[in-house]
Amino acid sequence: MRSILIFYLCYLLCLALGMACVVCVCVWNSGWRGGFAWDGSALQFNWHPVLMVTGMVVLYGNGAVLYRIPLTWGQNKLPWKLLHAALMLLALILSIVGLCAVFDFHNVNKIPNLYSLHSWIGIAATALFAMQWVAGMAGFLLPCSPVSLRKLLKPIHVWLGGSIVLLSIAACISGINEKLFFVLKGNTNGSQPYSGLPPEALLGNSLGVLIVAFGLVVLKILANSKWQRPDSRPEDMAYTPLLQEENE
Amino acid sequence: MRSILIFYLCYLLCLALGMACVVCVCVWNSGWRGGFAWDGSALQFNWHPVLMVTGMVVLYGNGAVLYRIPLTWGQNKLPWKLLHAALMLLALILSIVGLCAVFDFHNVNKIPNLYSLHSWIGIAATALFAMQWVAGMAGFLLPCSPVSLRKLLKPIHVWLGGSIVLLSIAACISGINEKLFFVLKGNTNGSQPYSGLPPEALLGNSLGVLIVAFGLVVLKILANSKWQRPDSRPEDMAYTPLLQEENE
Repeated sequence: MRSILIFYLCYLLCLALGMACVVCVCVWNSGWRGGFAWDGSALQFNWHPVLMVTGMVVLYGNGAVLYRIPLTWGQNKLPWKLLHAALMLLALILSIVGLCAVFDFHNVNKIPNLYSLHSWIGIAATALFAMQWVAGMAGFLLPCSPVSLRKLLKPIHVWLGGSIVLLSIAACISGINEKLFFVLKGNTNGSQPYSGLPPEALLGNSLGVLIVAFGLVVLKILANSKWQRPDSRPEDMAYTPLLQEENE
Repeated sequence: MRSILIFYLCYLLCLALGMACVVCVCVWNSGWRGGFAWDGSALQFNWHPVLMVTGMVVLYGNGAVLYRIPLTWGQNKLPWKLLHAALMLLALILSIVGLCAVFDFHNVNKIPNLYSLHSWIGIAATALFAMQWVAGMAGFLLPCSPVSLRKLLKPIHVWLGGSIVLLSIAACISGINEKLFFVLKGNTNGSQPYSGLPPEALLGNSLGVLIVAFGLVVLKILANSKWQRPDSRPEDMAYTPLLQEENE
């Protein structure tokens, strides 16, 4: 009972941090960066952080912890599998549209694509996510997929799922940092550069801190097998947590 | 036997990736950034990436996986605890000197400190690491520390240890990305900007990829309880891995 109570506290924190990330990235790009358009201008670029944070971080994280919700445990797993796949598909679509926004913005403005370390880590995270979704769909949802394939796929699916969270966090932090250096240069009108920590810098940095906090809460929820769906718990508990308590 | 063989393959990969990170960051800062000095110039800044990658990433990661080496299992744990503490202390000292290098460089050049998201995440990682070392020393090495305190501290020590790896990776990726934008601006002499992916950009980006790969291997080693020292394995295997196989 105490374990379930702590789960729901962590889950509430996960929902609150996720909501705060989405609000923060939307406020930043609508209120400070001029809003949104799809016309090759800087307003098109603004879709990129909003869609990547909403898709690759918040929706992905919520999709990942879905099976951990005790309310779902007494029920048939299939509807929850479908919801997990649907949430992840929505996250993937938002991420791909978020990538299209920046590729198209670069192409219109004759800026090369995929040269920065941020873009290398980000594209690796999205490519792995797409592979993960296709393999997960084929392995866990198609009725013809054999049990032996599911057993083979599951450890890879779990491992890759955690790795994608790490890559996404690194991509987001480097991307926000890069964007704030690009746009906060200061000028003779008295606007402050990034180094003067104007309100926009504080907002962007806070978004980065919220994303890291959200990622750590998601990984903590995933790591605790007391919070795993009972029919999914490993028979051989051969592993300890990465970001979770040992010997508890 | 197969598990131990796979451990040593992972451990070799961890050592090779760690060595590659150190070589890569040294080659970048000596061969491309002009080398090292402690005179407030850009050459002083060059100590920052070298010491943070060597200390906060490579030494820290190697210190973290030390107890996993099966060769150490048949022996008294105390010398290995001392080596773990010594490696972590060396990692912490290198990180602090690495921070001093950049603070002093900023102060001499009238650049504000701690304004970027990179610096917020990096300083959080180093502060948590310092707290972790002091609490670990007091809780696990002082003979007067009670067993009840050790039991209380251990899950926090393990959880914080993994979280610091995540923060360090995010700080490194954002820092390398920022540095490459700062120094690769292109000019009329024909030198290419970052967006032209000159050799230095490829080297810096490769360093970032190596750091992420090293971090994922360290976290994979830490997550597998088959590779835990037998007298440290949890009696209650209440957790599953974060980046590791379930149901294996």
